[in-house]
Amino acid sequence: MAAQASLPDLIRKKRDGERLEEEEIQSFVRGVTAGTAQQGQIGAMLMAIRLRGMDAAETLALTRAMAASGRALAWPPAWRGRLVDKHSTGGVGDKVSLALAPALAACGCKVPMISGRGLGHTGGTLDKLEAIPGFRVSQSPEEGTWDAEGTRDAEGTRDAEGTHGADARQRAAVPQMQSILERVGCCIVGQSEELAPADRVLYGLRDVTATVDSLPLITASILSKKAAEQLSALVLDVKFGSAALYPTQESARELARSLVAVGERLGIRTAAVLSRMDEPLGRCVGNSLEVLEALECLEGGGPPDLRELVTTLGGLLLWQCGLAAAAERGRERLCRALDDGSALRTFEAMLGAQGVPPATARRLCAGTPPQRRQVLGQASVCEELPALRGGWVQRVEALPLARVLHDLGAGRARAGDPVNPRVGAELLVAAGQRLQEGEPWLRLHHDGGLGGPGRRALQAALRLAPGPARAAPPRLAEAILPAGPPAPGPPRRGDGQ
Amino acid sequence: MAAQASLPDLIRKKRDGERLEEEEIQSFVRGVTAGTAQQGQIGAMLMAIRLRGMDAAETLALTRAMAASGRALAWPPAWRGRLVDKHSTGGVGDKVSLALAPALAACGCKVPMISGRGLGHTGGTLDKLEAIPGFRVSQSPEEGTWDAEGTRDAEGTRDAEGTHGADARQRAAVPQMQSILERVGCCIVGQSEELAPADRVLYGLRDVTATVDSLPLITASILSKKAAEQLSALVLDVKFGSAALYPTQESARELARSLVAVGERLGIRTAAVLSRMDEPLGRCVGNSLEVLEALECLEGGGPPDLRELVTTLGGLLLWQCGLAAAAERGRERLCRALDDGSALRTFEAMLGAQGVPPATARRLCAGTPPQRRQVLGQASVCEELPALRGGWVQRVEALPLARVLHDLGAGRARAGDPVNPRVGAELLVAAGQRLQEGEPWLRLHHDGGLGGPGRRALQAALRLAPGPARAAPPRLAEAILPAGPPAPGPPRRGDGQ
Repeated sequence: MAAQASLPDLIRKKRDGERLEEEEIQSFVRGVTAGTAQQGQIGAMLMAIRLRGMDAAETLALTRAMAASGRALAWPPAWRGRLVDKHSTGGVGDKVSLALAPALAACGCKVPMISGRGLGHTGGTLDKLEAIPGFRVSQSPEEGTWDAEGTRDAEGTRDAEGTHGADARQRAAVPQMQSILERVGCCIVGQSEELAPADRVLYGLRDVTATVDSLPLITASILSKKAAEQLSALVLDVKFGSAALYPTQESARELARSLVAVGERLGIRTAAVLSRMDEPLGRCVGNSLEVLEALECLEGGGPPDLRELVTTLGGLLLWQCGLAAAAERGRERLCRALDDGSALRTFEAMLGAQGVPPATARRLCAGTPPQRRQVLGQASVCEELPALRGGWVQRVEALPLARVLHDLGAGRARAGDPVNPRVGAELLVAAGQRLQEGEPWLRLHHDGGLGGPGRRALQAALRLAPGPARAAPPRLAEAILPAGPPAPGPPRRGDGQ
Repeated sequence: MAAQASLPDLIRKKRDGERLEEEEIQSFVRGVTAGTAQQGQIGAMLMAIRLRGMDAAETLALTRAMAASGRALAWPPAWRGRLVDKHSTGGVGDKVSLALAPALAACGCKVPMISGRGLGHTGGTLDKLEAIPGFRVSQSPEEGTWDAEGTRDAEGTRDAEGTHGADARQRAAVPQMQSILERVGCCIVGQSEELAPADRVLYGLRDVTATVDSLPLITASILSKKAAEQLSALVLDVKFGSAALYPTQESARELARSLVAVGERLGIRTAAVLSRMDEPLGRCVGNSLEVLEALECLEGGGPPDLRELVTTLGGLLLWQCGLAAAAERGRERLCRALDDGSALRTFEAMLGAQGVPPATARRLCAGTPPQRRQVLGQASVCEELPALRGGWVQRVEALPLARVLHDLGAGRARAGDPVNPRVGAELLVAAGQRLQEGEPWLRLHHDGGLGGPGRRALQAALRLAPGPARAAPPRLAEAILPAGPPAPGPPRRGDGQ
C-alpha cells in the first residue's frame, strides 16, 4: 500500500505541483492502457499536467511509458541507422510526406511512415493518399511486423517477454510493412491499434478536456509513437503562424526544443525545423489537388516552398543517419532524387505495394496532367474567383481558405466521416504579384454548396496592398538541432539492434 | 454556436483562470446531470476549479445549478420560518444530530434532516441510527413529499412545470416525510436519488480525482442539498484539527465564511461554528455506543462537550428562526428541552415513525443502561486497555482510534459495505486526569480481530505528559455569523412560500 501510490495520490501530487517519479508515471499509464483508471481521473490528471507542467525527466518518462503501452515495431539488423521518419504538427496544403518518404527511400533510407487522417481544418496524409484509387492505408497487426515491447526479433520466432505478452498471431504474421520496406524502401500507413494505445486514450480525451496545448503532453504523444516505430532518426516540422497550432515562432521553438531533447534521450537522432504556416504550403489545397502537386515535386518541379521544405527536412535526416556529411549535402542529395526520377519511381512502387493497380500507378506517375486528373477524378464544378479590386498580393490566408474547403466536403467534422477528395483550391497568384480588378486569383473545385458566405470568406482571405509590399518572410524560419553533433558513431538504441 | 459555449470551451475558460458566467455554470451542471458531459471532461473541470478557484458569485451559481438539478422538497406554508437543519463536516464520535434534531423539534422547529453514511474513518449519522433494530433511513420518492423544481405545492396536486418534469407517482405520493414532520417534528433520512443528482456525480468523482478539498466545490456540495430542502435556517459545524478535513482553524474559518455567505445569498439564514476535532466528541466512538451516549444527552446528561455543542448549534438555529431573542437564549431553551424529557420523547416518537417497533423504542428511551444495551446488542469481546506507563492525560487522538475501530468493522472501505454496529470504544479517561501505569484507559468492544498492530496504534493514541498539563482548549472555538442580524422579518426564499 505504501509502496504503490494510488491514482488519486498521483493526481494529488501533480495537482500540488510536485514531480512524478518514473514508476508513478508508469503506473498512471498502465491504468490508462488497462482501463483501470477512470475517465474522470484521466481528465483530472491531464488538467493537472496542463496547469502544473512536467519537467524534462517527467516528459521522457511519460513518453517511454506510452511507447511501452503497446507493441514496438521490429526491423532487420541490416537496416540499423537508416530507419527514418518525419512528423509535422499540421498545416494547410502540407503534402510534404507524399514526396519526402519516396525521396528518402530513393536515397537509401527505410521509411516506415505512420501517418494520420485529417480532423479540423488540415487534411491528413492518409486522406490525400486515399484520393488515389486502390490505395490502402490499413496496417492491421496481421499485416505488420509486430514484436513484443522492447524485443527486436524481425523473424518473430523468439518468445515475447514484454508485459503485454504476444500471441500466436505475432509469430505467424505476414511482415507486410517490412516486406514493403524491403522491396520499396518506404510505406505510408495508418496507426495500428497496437501502437502506443495509451496515446490513443489520452489523445482522444485531450481534445475534449481543453488539454491539447500542453508541451509535455504534445511531446509524449508525438514521440511515443515514434519510439514504438524504433526509428534511427526523426525530423520534425513544427509550424507556427495563423493557421498552425502555435501562433508564434517562440512557442513553436519551445515545442521543438522539447521534442528534440526528449527524442535524443529516447535514442532517436532528432532535429526540427520551424516553418511558417500563414499561407498554404505550395499552391494547392485539397486531397486530389495535393496529390497532383506532390507528383510535380517528385518529378523535380512543383512550388519552390514545397521543394525547399521536402529537401531541407530530408537533408537533415540523411545527415543524421550519416548518409550525408552535412545537412546541406543531404539536401542536395534529395534534390537529385527528385530531379533524376528515382523518387517518383519509388512513389510508384509504393503505390503498387499498397494496393494501387499497376496501370493506375503508372498512369498517375508517368501520365500527363490531364491523365493524372482523370485517374483521380474531378469535381463537377470548377470556377475561378475574380479579384474584387486591384492591388499587390500580400498573402492568401490559409485558415479561412481551409475552413471554406472543409465546409465544402474536403475535411471531416468528426473521426470516421467521409471526405470528398475532389474538393480543393488552386492559388493562381503569389505574394508580391500585382493583380488587376476582375483578374482570377483562385480556382475552386467543388461539387456544389458554395454560397455567399463562403465566397465572402474566400475573398477576405486574399490580402492586397495598395502598393508593392516587401517580400514575404521565408517559409523556413529556423532549425533546432540537438546539442551534440550527430555522427554515424556506434549503434545506439533505436538503431535496429 | 456563438451563443452557447461548448463544454471544452468552458473547461478552457476555467483552465485559464477566467470567471464562468451563471449560464455557463448551468450548462456544465446540466451536462453533468443529463450525462452528456463525459466523465473525463467532468474530471478536467473539477481539477481546473480546484486549481483556479471560483469567486463568490460563481460558487453561488454552481450551488444553485446543482440544487436545481433535481427536485426540491415542498412544505406547508404554516411551517414558514421554522424549517431548520444542521450540517457537520464530519468528526470522530459525532452523534450531535441524534440529539439535536429531536431537541429542536421539541422547541417548535421542523427538522427534515437529510444525512449521510460514513465512509472513511468517521461514522455516518445513518449508520448510528441503523444500529437501532427496525430503523429505516430510506427516503424513496414514493415516500417523500417531492415537488418539481422550484414549485411549492405540498398537496402535490398542481402540475409540475420544472424542466425535470413530474410523473403520476408524485401526485399519488404518500407524503411520509411531511407526515412525520407533522406528527413528530423531525426525521433523519438518507439522501434521495432525486435530491441534487448533479452533486452525487460530482461528489463521487471528487473523491477519486483529488479534488475534494476545493472551497467552492465543498460549499456547493453541502449547500445544494440544503437549498433543495428549502430550509429557513441552517447551522454548520465546521471541524478543524488532526481528525478533521481541515487541519487548521484558519482553513476551517475560510470554509465557514464561504458557506455562510453563499447560504445567506440562497435565502437560508446560515451560521457556523468552528469546533476542534483532535479528540473524539464525547466519550464513545462506534455506532451502538454513540446511540447510548446520544440517549444520555437527550435525557439531560452525557458528556459536557456533546451537550455544549448540541445546545450551541441548536441555540443559533432558534435565534435565526426568531424563536429565541438571542443565541444564548436559544441555547438555554435547548437545555430545557434536554432536561425536561421533551427532546427524549420526540426522539422516541421519531424512532416509531421511522420503523422502530414501539416497544423497542420505549425500551431504548425509557430503559436502564443494561436494557438499552440489550436492545442494541453487544460485541462478543469487551476488553480494557491498561496504560503502559503513568502520567497526566494530555489527550486521546481521535484519528488513530477511529482507524483501528474502522479496521475492526465499525466503518466501511467502500460504499455499500456492511458495518458492525457493535464495534466501538469508550474513553475511560479525560484530558488533565492523572493515570497510573496499568490503570485501564480505554474499553474496547469488538467481535475479534484486534492484533498487535491495532493495540500498538491504540496505545500510541493516548498522549501522556510527565506532569500536570494545561487545560485543553475548549471544543467550541468560534462562531461565524452572517453580516446582517437575523430577525423574524418578512418571509424570504426558503421560508415555505
